[in-house]
Amino acid sequence: MRIALRVIVLVIFALSMWSINPPLSINLSTWHLFTIFITTIISILFNILPIIAAAIIALAVSILSGVIEPAKAYAGFSESFILLIVAAFLVSHAVHKSGLGKRLSLHIIRRFGHSTLGLGYSVIATDILIAPAFPSNTARSGVLYPIIYGLAHDCGSKVGDNTQRKAGSYLMITSMAGLTISSGLWLTAMAVNPIGVGIAQKMGIHITFGSWLMCAIVPTLIAFALIPWMLYRIYPPELKETPDAPKNAAAALEHMGAISRNEWITAAVFISMLTLWALSGLFPIDKAAVAFGGLGILMATKVFGIEDFRSQGEALSTLIWFAILFGLSTQLAEQGFMNTIAEHFTQYLNGFSWGVVYAMLIAIYVLIHYLFVSQSAHLLALFGIFLSVGVQAGVPGELMAMMLLFATNFNATLTPQGSSCNAIYLSSGYISARDIYIYGGAVTLLTFCIFILIGTPWILALL
Amino acid sequence: MRIALRVIVLVIFALSMWSINPPLSINLSTWHLFTIFITTIISILFNILPIIAAAIIALAVSILSGVIEPAKAYAGFSESFILLIVAAFLVSHAVHKSGLGKRLSLHIIRRFGHSTLGLGYSVIATDILIAPAFPSNTARSGVLYPIIYGLAHDCGSKVGDNTQRKAGSYLMITSMAGLTISSGLWLTAMAVNPIGVGIAQKMGIHITFGSWLMCAIVPTLIAFALIPWMLYRIYPPELKETPDAPKNAAAALEHMGAISRNEWITAAVFISMLTLWALSGLFPIDKAAVAFGGLGILMATKVFGIEDFRSQGEALSTLIWFAILFGLSTQLAEQGFMNTIAEHFTQYLNGFSWGVVYAMLIAIYVLIHYLFVSQSAHLLALFGIFLSVGVQAGVPGELMAMMLLFATNFNATLTPQGSSCNAIYLSSGYISARDIYIYGGAVTLLTFCIFILIGTPWILALL
Repeated sequence: MRIALRVIVLVIFALSMWSINPPLSINLSTWHLFTIFITTIISILFNILPIIAAAIIALAVSILSGVIEPAKAYAGFSESFILLIVAAFLVSHAVHKSGLGKRLSLHIIRRFGHSTLGLGYSVIATDILIAPAFPSNTARSGVLYPIIYGLAHDCGSKVGDNTQRKAGSYLMITSMAGLTISSGLWLTAMAVNPIGVGIAQKMGIHITFGSWLMCAIVPTLIAFALIPWMLYRIYPPELKETPDAPKNAAAALEHMGAISRNEWITAAVFISMLTLWALSGLFPIDKAAVAFGGLGILMATKVFGIEDFRSQGEALSTLIWFAILFGLSTQLAEQGFMNTIAEHFTQYLNGFSWGVVYAMLIAIYVLIHYLFVSQSAHLLALFGIFLSVGVQAGVPGELMAMMLLFATNFNATLTPQGSSCNAIYLSSGYISARDIYIYGGAVTLLTFCIFILIGTPWILALL
Repeated sequence: MRIALRVIVLVIFALSMWSINPPLSINLSTWHLFTIFITTIISILFNILPIIAAAIIALAVSILSGVIEPAKAYAGFSESFILLIVAAFLVSHAVHKSGLGKRLSLHIIRRFGHSTLGLGYSVIATDILIAPAFPSNTARSGVLYPIIYGLAHDCGSKVGDNTQRKAGSYLMITSMAGLTISSGLWLTAMAVNPIGVGIAQKMGIHITFGSWLMCAIVPTLIAFALIPWMLYRIYPPELKETPDAPKNAAAALEHMGAISRNEWITAAVFISMLTLWALSGLFPIDKAAVAFGGLGILMATKVFGIEDFRSQGEALSTLIWFAILFGLSTQLAEQGFMNTIAEHFTQYLNGFSWGVVYAMLIAIYVLIHYLFVSQSAHLLALFGIFLSVGVQAGVPGELMAMMLLFATNFNATLTPQGSSCNAIYLSSGYISARDIYIYGGAVTLLTFCIFILIGTPWILALL
């Protein structure tokens, strides 16, 4: 009955929202779209519907009620960065299937596998080290994911037999959280970092690869120290100490023997993809096409067979819910809804000291991420506005710009749809959409405090 | 080694095509796109690559070589009619899983199940009778497919255990072929029929629901009589006479007992979808949104669970290859390639009698469908041009228009990508892409002969 009660409350909420007069002179159709969007988010948050069912219903309601045109509602399906999630997910299956994922993860366990916490740290450390060469965190999540998947399997933690919480759930969410700080550490570690820098440049704020790194390094390293530990406390793996794991991993590597044909091919494809992805920061190379190219080679060489496609329904589910939520959120932003909300809240900031304005702006910027699907959409819609409001209130420009850019990265785990990276981890089945709302939300709170309380004086000291 | 030889020949062919000077003053980039497209088609036709692998490689090559912009290459993924295939496919899984598909198919077997040939006729007869209420043949294939799937299963014919040729392959291809004539019989049975009528109207040719039906009925009924029989000869089911099947079906229906909760829900959703699809001819109702809405209700009521999604990778594969080929073909058409080819061939028609011009135009129109993905794209690109060339050469306008409209429908089984309907049948696994090229091609040849040799004098007699 509890679910029935929740459904009734949700329906009453949705109908009331739908029928009231929109506040802030928002037009009726935009308000209805917002009602559909927020009802969807709530139904996921309170476990009323799975994310895919909620998204599909939201799509049907918003199109059939005439709130959104079909072409705009479906636009997300042909977004390159969303197709990149799908292609990277499929390639990761080949990395796993070929044995390469297992081999890489066994190497990690051999070195750092004394405890699950140690694995958590090693996962983020790997991410941080490879990040500057990856101009897309989605691409990077596609590289890390099969390795984490291998780690989970090696720890005897699988989906479907009630062992997912043994180690897999913890490692997945830790890696997902790690991406928010690895992407914020380097100017070149995330697709929209350079775009933000470009917008700041136009407002006379100059940020370089080096100045970015200097500003980021202290709060990022503190976050790196605390995130795996905090998740270990609040979302603990059942498997904790694994003193024999490194020895067993060495034996398993021995047992695996020489690298097989399929592993060689996968490794070659994987390295080529990494190289092209790294070059895509310098040349106009479409990252999704690179992933599709890799997948095509893996299919042509039968490392990834057509029969493998049959079991990849999760990739379809991810594509559908992510594309739908992205389409709805993009429309909401295009119709000016996010701007109106942002302007409404920032108007209360008049008269406060710049420090208060600064902290409030960052807090609002982070919280408003509940409405956005993907980090790019958020930055493109609001970074410029928030930066100029802050600068006008007297916040030092570089501080304001850097902190908004960090926030664009560290707010990514607030919701399942907060970043395209999350989608690939969620599709693993090791973590639920609700887990991301709760524990991803906790990580965002932690990183928000670290960046505001430690990052702010650090950046001011550097100026 | 034979496959290695075929690969080498294909690569040499592709490289030669790529490097020659384009004929007919086609520009270089369009020629390269054509080279990629035709190489893809050939690699599927000669079993060198599965359709999904061929399409993915074509996508990567065409984007990474700069022949096509990423956004244009991905455009197919957000096409409503392509997403309709995916949603209809997923709903059909629920129809099957709930038992409703089985129940409907048992009813058909109880009446017509004495032989597999009888089932073939009953499948097309059902299609023909429901067609006028379905303004989309894709939607109709979504309705027929789960029933055919049920029929195949009831005949003990499944995919993966070497029994697919027992009855399933035959029934699938028969239904697929049947759609080409059911869609051509009624003005309202296919999405672009009314569009063609509109174009003809502007050229002073008036076609009504009644005049369409009169022109179509004789050749369509002859095709209806011959198609199941021809496929039974050239693509025979292993199971032929089934004298006990009706009795067994009656017993199985008895055994199934009362309609279950899930069947009721599925039936209600299914009937609502049919109603909305039928109304979409009169009101602007997006057909894919209707299917997504139905799927959403089936998910919310747990008839279709999230665990069901995992096994739906075939739907993802279908979406990917169809969207890619559609994107490439659309670009080819937009860059004027199809027009150039059509103009080139029609210029040789000067000086011939109108009868020869007429037959040649229809033949060219049908053959050029090898280059098109979906029937809509073909009609929109070429119907107007062919109609005006024919009329100028003295072909009676109504004859030319009607025959081109019939051809738009009967050329659909020429290739796997020739119609969005084909995709759903191909995804069943009962038939291969190559089967469609061969036996679908044979059906097109048969219907071409019927429509030209019998349809032509019949229409002239009516004028």
